[in-house]
Amino acid sequence: MPGSLFGHLFRISTFGESHGGAVGVVIDGCPPGITIDLAEIQAELDRRKPGQSKITTARAETDIAEIVSGVFDGKATGTPICILVRNKDARSTDYEPFKDIYRPSHADFTYDAKYGFRNWAGGGRASARETIGRVAAGAVAKRILREQCGVEVLAWVSRVQDIEANIDPADVTLAAVEANIVRCPDAAAAEKMIALISAVKADGDSIGGTVDVVARGVPAGLGEPVFDKLEADLAKAMLSLPASKSFEIGSGVAGTYLKGSEHNDEFVMKDGRVATTTNRSGGVQGGISNGEPITLRVGFKPVATILQKQMTVNNKGERVELMPRGRHDPCVLPRAVPMVEAMMALVLCDHLLRQRAIGG
Amino acid sequence: MPGSLFGHLFRISTFGESHGGAVGVVIDGCPPGITIDLAEIQAELDRRKPGQSKITTARAETDIAEIVSGVFDGKATGTPICILVRNKDARSTDYEPFKDIYRPSHADFTYDAKYGFRNWAGGGRASARETIGRVAAGAVAKRILREQCGVEVLAWVSRVQDIEANIDPADVTLAAVEANIVRCPDAAAAEKMIALISAVKADGDSIGGTVDVVARGVPAGLGEPVFDKLEADLAKAMLSLPASKSFEIGSGVAGTYLKGSEHNDEFVMKDGRVATTTNRSGGVQGGISNGEPITLRVGFKPVATILQKQMTVNNKGERVELMPRGRHDPCVLPRAVPMVEAMMALVLCDHLLRQRAIGG
Amino acid sequence: MPGSLFGHLFRISTFGESHGGAVGVVIDGCPPGITIDLAEIQAELDRRKPGQSKITTARAETDIAEIVSGVFDGKATGTPICILVRNKDARSTDYEPFKDIYRPSHADFTYDAKYGFRNWAGGGRASARETIGRVAAGAVAKRILREQCGVEVLAWVSRVQDIEANIDPADVTLAAVEANIVRCPDAAAAEKMIALISAVKADGDSIGGTVDVVARGVPAGLGEPVFDKLEADLAKAMLSLPASKSFEIGSGVAGTYLKGSEHNDEFVMKDGRVATTTNRSGGVQGGISNGEPITLRVGFKPVATILQKQMTVNNKGERVELMPRGRHDPCVLPRAVPMVEAMMALVLCDHLLRQRAIGG
Amino acid sequence: MPGSLFGHLFRISTFGESHGGAVGVVIDGCPPGITIDLAEIQAELDRRKPGQSKITTARAETDIAEIVSGVFDGKATGTPICILVRNKDARSTDYEPFKDIYRPSHADFTYDAKYGFRNWAGGGRASARETIGRVAAGAVAKRILREQCGVEVLAWVSRVQDIEANIDPADVTLAAVEANIVRCPDAAAAEKMIALISAVKADGDSIGGTVDVVARGVPAGLGEPVFDKLEADLAKAMLSLPASKSFEIGSGVAGTYLKGSEHNDEFVMKDGRVATTTNRSGGVQGGISNGEPITLRVGFKPVATILQKQMTVNNKGERVELMPRGRHDPCVLPRAVPMVEAMMALVLCDHLLRQRAIGG
Repeated sequence: MPGSLFGHLFRISTFGESHGGAVGVVIDGCPPGITIDLAEIQAELDRRKPGQSKITTARAETDIAEIVSGVFDGKATGTPICILVRNKDARSTDYEPFKDIYRPSHADFTYDAKYGFRNWAGGGRASARETIGRVAAGAVAKRILREQCGVEVLAWVSRVQDIEANIDPADVTLAAVEANIVRCPDAAAAEKMIALISAVKADGDSIGGTVDVVARGVPAGLGEPVFDKLEADLAKAMLSLPASKSFEIGSGVAGTYLKGSEHNDEFVMKDGRVATTTNRSGGVQGGISNGEPITLRVGFKPVATILQKQMTVNNKGERVELMPRGRHDPCVLPRAVPMVEAMMALVLCDHLLRQRAIGG
Repeated sequence: MPGSLFGHLFRISTFGESHGGAVGVVIDGCPPGITIDLAEIQAELDRRKPGQSKITTARAETDIAEIVSGVFDGKATGTPICILVRNKDARSTDYEPFKDIYRPSHADFTYDAKYGFRNWAGGGRASARETIGRVAAGAVAKRILREQCGVEVLAWVSRVQDIEANIDPADVTLAAVEANIVRCPDAAAAEKMIALISAVKADGDSIGGTVDVVARGVPAGLGEPVFDKLEADLAKAMLSLPASKSFEIGSGVAGTYLKGSEHNDEFVMKDGRVATTTNRSGGVQGGISNGEPITLRVGFKPVATILQKQMTVNNKGERVELMPRGRHDPCVLPRAVPMVEAMMALVLCDHLLRQRAIGG
Repeated sequence: MPGSLFGHLFRISTFGESHGGAVGVVIDGCPPGITIDLAEIQAELDRRKPGQSKITTARAETDIAEIVSGVFDGKATGTPICILVRNKDARSTDYEPFKDIYRPSHADFTYDAKYGFRNWAGGGRASARETIGRVAAGAVAKRILREQCGVEVLAWVSRVQDIEANIDPADVTLAAVEANIVRCPDAAAAEKMIALISAVKADGDSIGGTVDVVARGVPAGLGEPVFDKLEADLAKAMLSLPASKSFEIGSGVAGTYLKGSEHNDEFVMKDGRVATTTNRSGGVQGGISNGEPITLRVGFKPVATILQKQMTVNNKGERVELMPRGRHDPCVLPRAVPMVEAMMALVLCDHLLRQRAIGG
Repeated sequence: MPGSLFGHLFRISTFGESHGGAVGVVIDGCPPGITIDLAEIQAELDRRKPGQSKITTARAETDIAEIVSGVFDGKATGTPICILVRNKDARSTDYEPFKDIYRPSHADFTYDAKYGFRNWAGGGRASARETIGRVAAGAVAKRILREQCGVEVLAWVSRVQDIEANIDPADVTLAAVEANIVRCPDAAAAEKMIALISAVKADGDSIGGTVDVVARGVPAGLGEPVFDKLEADLAKAMLSLPASKSFEIGSGVAGTYLKGSEHNDEFVMKDGRVATTTNRSGGVQGGISNGEPITLRVGFKPVATILQKQMTVNNKGERVELMPRGRHDPCVLPRAVPMVEAMMALVLCDHLLRQRAIGG
């Protein structure tokens, strides 16, 4: 069963490879009448695109989106919205020398194992270019959440290697996130992060860390027992992003060191609604949103493409030396921020529609 | 859209509440001809059942499974297998005093928010009794994996609060896991864990930690780009378990502190197949298994039920004091071990069938 | 991918064979708060059960339903409702002589071809007993449709062989349908039908015909372009019933003989809503309900089990003579009436929830 | 839940409206290594395209397909194949006078009822242009069926109004179907059909009839009990086509007039396999293919667009006169032939992959 579909009622399917004609997405299930603003979608793609700063890859893609269907007079008609982005700076010749070689910690070998052969010109479907469709669809999902229930989704870089930012999810703003090229709203930490990434880039190496995301204003009642718990769908969403290695909701790993008496969130009344004094639950209890901010952390490994010599094997089973050249992302985190936001928005939007279906 | 379904080709759907007539599962898509051994299923349920040791809840359930359909002459016919477990020791009167009260960090409030009312007799669908169906289906999935491709799935308690076990996933055995009541194959750590849990239980408190799981012998090629990556489906599977807070694959959070040059797994030939010298990828690259052991870690919070006084609100918005009584699990980890194994097996079995479909 | 699941938001999955422990259904996605009335469900099962009259099979099943989960204080909780019916009068010894023989126009050979073996004790999953779960779930769906949008679903036998009933779908009533054992509301035709079926039964033969069904009060707007058109989902629903051979919506086959100028339904205003003067569309235009009655016709072949000598082959490829004995249904139509109603109700209920999801 | 997705393992999703940027399809789940031949796809689109003969609409679309993704070195990579066709001759001004008017038996009113507004420039998603994606995907499905199991799918016009063709599904050929513009392999009937359609066109009227389709060489064992029976999925597939009104498998409606003793298909051995002497079952028994040719009949109504004056209402509820102008298809049948083939191929291809998944 193919795996390029995400969501059930607000459903997206992405297509395209890093070095083919185009990448894109079909969004099916968009509530009719929602404004589809191409500029808004483009703005999100610009946050994701390569070459946007000195700490990202130099691949020069303009990533201009075209809306091919599903919109009339600027509004979603309720039918499938197809958004297309042509590949421009696809230097597949860069990849020709490596077409038989299994690059370490890439998907070359596993795609061969699965399909018998692969599109060796670039990363194929495993390329981060696939996330263009997600980010475009996420822009639509964010608009629905904002317009139809006042939800705001916001992500930021919370750690690069061991440099941690100090951020309060309750009041972080998009402006603060976008204030610097590493997308860390803690300015002091951001400065150190940029310096570290620059140094790593100079070495031809790469580096990992974490992205945090919050959704504020989520109504209570979203999420489904028992398999489609909100945190389960969010975990799947995040672990489907390239290079992700870990997922934590609310108190996360730190919470597993506490006792129940320390971890439980006390219920109180606040502004006439049931609220909690703390939010170790991360806004989700029993798989269902409780009205508090939904808070997650996603860990990303250092990207596998490094400009250093490595030993590996080729598809004939011979030991070979790999010396990559060209362009690479020393740290995926700043560009992962819009991806993480998109995935959060897609999950929430799907569950919003699911909850409406039962008459809630 | 309801959320009690898991998997696509090997698909299960669970039903039942903690205090209703029965809990159970329908397994649809079981390959025909597989031996369905009731004793084997029962053995897994016995690892999960309450009252199995001094460090679990005292609720006395025998959890006897009945196979209602889908089996003929001891073999799966290929049609739905329904397995039923009657609830026995369901003291719903224990819950009557709390029927209007939102217990902290339970699903009482969120179920009310979602559905407008709830089955207050016990935890309803949010109860861990729901996992009976998963564990029963997991026993079948493990058999398929073992018979049809020699895969072994094994989980253990790797940490209780800050007591960490020292285990090599390459050679841990079921016997070692089952050698003690905490299901930690590091005997020295296990002893400390049991002492800690006993102390916490005496205080009426609860405690969290982690479960590790490994799948050995998984063929390369399982998993689907891009949303149904193996780690994405595994993350969803694990975060759908009650009380889970975090998910890590391979190097996990620790891996996000490394550089690419330190993290990449070098390819080599081993026994005629492509292998890696290290396994920071956790057996999955680009969302697809690479033939190395699949290794995961799941974090569980301290369970929310504690026998201590807590403040909260009721469904009229009044501040109330909650003083639970009765039975509780001081630490969910030992009973979570078979659940984690089951979820891993269910995901792998589904992807095994998915890979067959494309002719691989 | 297994095929025992039907519907998306109001979703059912059936399980069980004709001669196993039990048959049943899990309903997932039932809107919370709906009254689940066991007597109402049982009444539908009684319309379906064997042995109800002299023109049905003599197999004596009481078909008593048990609700195992998902209901609290007589209301659906929103979680899976499992309904179970134990098999009682299962004489599998009746089938032993035929266990190697492929009965003509039965599923014996195709199940063997698909699964490699089969449960030869009775019809297995291909038995009409599987429809018990559908009818039980249909009773719930009918209640939802009635309570939440005033929809009434009603079916009747419209033709037995060449005896046609003369019925106006606009005003046919349940009382008229239930007024005779053949479930044909045209009393004169019913009398002839009963005589014909009795004669056919005496010959050990069987006979086919059609069932008509109408849904009155369906709001405009249900159904989804382009694959999940209402008539497409209805066609699938009906062709999934045992022995069904044809499906017609609205004007059906007869309509294909008309010209556009004769077939088009003129729009007019009626009681303040857009209506049509004729209903050749059968209540569906472009796959979406238009507020007029939805009218369908389903053709059923003569059932394959006949008490006459037939030639066939066995599973060794040998030519053998088959002389069935025991019990058989000379005409499936009277018992198909509640099945057809159930399938119509299931489809409409699913699409009602789907329409709610988009905010309509 | 949106409805633009079809299939499970071989899954397509179409997008696009009659008068937007483009229409197209994403095929997900194509077995890797299959040759994707653009000329072959184009040839099928040419059979479907408007303006191909004097008896079809004059809308002049070249319908040139572009493959945007999923193909490398002429082979399917196993990842999503997106195929795009730009709309060219889209005269939306033709539709401006009717933008507030509900054309009889069109989807104008129901789309408004469902979505609150609609893309009035052309038929939107309800346009037959949507089927371009289906036909393109069908070409791929036919190739898979042919290459991987020797299946041939072939459809033809079997009746126009009351002019019936006399064809034997066992030996009809593509050459015979394509030998005339009405796609009826009975030359004498074809001549009469063309004359009738021409006369109807001259009157500005339209006319219906039936398309028959056969799949030869289908292996036994495809199809799933109980809801996803092969005939159920085929019925859904066919009733999802614009203007379809009826579906018959095997003996169809005619079979419902027979007795069981007349209808049953006797099993015999033929060329070492189990076969039947007659094929009233239409190649499917118990929802599963039995190795005989699969034979279906689909009824199409006269298309709703006629160039004659009609009375109707507009979206303000006012009675108005409609006098359409421009281009119309007097008879959908010749262009429906490749659509019916495509839908048959899509269903069989999906079930072929489903059967592989269980290890059969």
